[in-house]
Amino acid sequence: MNTLASYTTLIEKEIESFSFPQSPVNLYDPLRYFMTLGGKRMRPMLTLMSGKLFGKTSEESMSAAMAVELFHNFSLIHDDIMDEAPLRRAKATVHEKWNTNIAILSGDVLFVKAYEQICKHPAHLIPSLLALFNKTAIEVCEGQQMDMDFETRNDVSAKEYIEMIRLKTSVLLGCALEMGAIIGETTAENRQALYAFGEHLGIAFQIQDDLLDLYGDPDKVGKQVGGDVLANKKTLLSILAKTYASTEQLNALDVLQSEVNADKKLSETKTIFEALQIQQRCQEEMRKHYDFAMNALATVQANNSIDELSALANYLFHREY
Amino acid sequence: MNTLASYTTLIEKEIESFSFPQSPVNLYDPLRYFMTLGGKRMRPMLTLMSGKLFGKTSEESMSAAMAVELFHNFSLIHDDIMDEAPLRRAKATVHEKWNTNIAILSGDVLFVKAYEQICKHPAHLIPSLLALFNKTAIEVCEGQQMDMDFETRNDVSAKEYIEMIRLKTSVLLGCALEMGAIIGETTAENRQALYAFGEHLGIAFQIQDDLLDLYGDPDKVGKQVGGDVLANKKTLLSILAKTYASTEQLNALDVLQSEVNADKKLSETKTIFEALQIQQRCQEEMRKHYDFAMNALATVQANNSIDELSALANYLFHREY
Repeated sequence: MNTLASYTTLIEKEIESFSFPQSPVNLYDPLRYFMTLGGKRMRPMLTLMSGKLFGKTSEESMSAAMAVELFHNFSLIHDDIMDEAPLRRAKATVHEKWNTNIAILSGDVLFVKAYEQICKHPAHLIPSLLALFNKTAIEVCEGQQMDMDFETRNDVSAKEYIEMIRLKTSVLLGCALEMGAIIGETTAENRQALYAFGEHLGIAFQIQDDLLDLYGDPDKVGKQVGGDVLANKKTLLSILAKTYASTEQLNALDVLQSEVNADKKLSETKTIFEALQIQQRCQEEMRKHYDFAMNALATVQANNSIDELSALANYLFHREY
Repeated sequence: MNTLASYTTLIEKEIESFSFPQSPVNLYDPLRYFMTLGGKRMRPMLTLMSGKLFGKTSEESMSAAMAVELFHNFSLIHDDIMDEAPLRRAKATVHEKWNTNIAILSGDVLFVKAYEQICKHPAHLIPSLLALFNKTAIEVCEGQQMDMDFETRNDVSAKEYIEMIRLKTSVLLGCALEMGAIIGETTAENRQALYAFGEHLGIAFQIQDDLLDLYGDPDKVGKQVGGDVLANKKTLLSILAKTYASTEQLNALDVLQSEVNADKKLSETKTIFEALQIQQRCQEEMRKHYDFAMNALATVQANNSIDELSALANYLFHREY
């Protein structure tokens, strides 16, 4: 997609233009490092596209786009500590490359840097942008806490799981889009519709992630197939399996949790999932949110076409199929 | 001081009125716990007193006062992790009572809660309040990083040390006061004068802390005398001692670092400090900043008297002498 590439170029250029102070070097080197690790830059792209709907140039929406991207990176640095993740985008995480204290503190600074971007917009827009950003930031933290709480629980329902991913990842997409709408000074209806588009697109996207882990093309997914199953990770798949399993299937799934033979663990889990139509059930749930997102987008009344946003949504859902 | 007590009552009442959400309980219980551990509430008091100079009621300045207090508590929760501190105000720290992940994340939420308070002010004040708050938050993080960096350095100068305490603790006092001035919609000169008052008062206060550790009345200081010396902590005292020591005295101080007999360590260190006039040198430095602060305060042109603020400054400097 040519359009995506041109947005990515703009965004990368903006990120490269950041000049973090030289000192204290242990505070700012991690940020220089982490901000240039790459990524799809999907969130800032959503803000720019949303602003464009209402006649705003990329330049006019760029600071809010950066606020969202900086916040996203802040949350990754802190989440990586909590998840004890050694790698992010195939490179060492900040707490691995430096240490946990530096990761906490440089994350905190990055969070403020996000708020600094909001300050760059015209004064009359700042209260609305700030209120939305605060609400979203708190929800993302709540989602991360739910995710951590779920690790030690065995009774997580599909509804709770979807609420967790909504908070942890989807509300930030909604926020990115609504910020473009705020900058575009459009109606409350348009703001809400764009938020809902991002929110449900995010949920669908996360369910797709869960599905791809087990059913994706290994050449395209770029990571070990079934990694979530092997790590006994809670996903919509495993939660729905527990929901619909018979007592016998439940016991079998329970025994498989401690199975050390990876091939056996994967194939037997897949057999049970197949009997329970887990793939189809997840696809249905994903489709439901995807359709909801696209319907919300279709209601937007804008000067410019929604084609870019629907093309982006479409692109995201044909990544690895 | 009667006035102080009435401000404290107002502030504690406001803090008690916070209603953090019930769920996720592991995110909000630590905040309910930490915010009611007490403390002098000096920072929000400065905001209220500053607003009052320009005719603003405590109610009108309260949200900014809370923003500063919430931010201060956020930074304590994260600093306690970094310093591996088991206790805060004689109670378990958040990472001790819960765990490090919960302390990171509940700290993050508290940070956003501070920004939410800023949003409560009239829209036309928000951009200025936000810009000042962002600048201050970044400086506090920079100060904390410098403090951590100093731990492994042996060549920290008095100038660097004072810059570190200025960033880590004093700029937030300046911010608290300037926020009151912003709410009071006063002149740039008054804003700057109140900021300078807080900034230099904070530096003087921190030097006083260093002094009290070794020269304070043990009954009034409320902690072990000489704790900083025994822990080989860098303070203005130890830094000035290294600056002015002869080669012989330097060697003696070096040997004392690993002295295990506490009484011997303290008395011999004190003898060297006395020969080098360390107490007097620190008092001079403290007095310089205190006088600078009071002179800045005296330049403020306000509707109401600066007496409350000068009384507070005076009170802070006669705590334990």
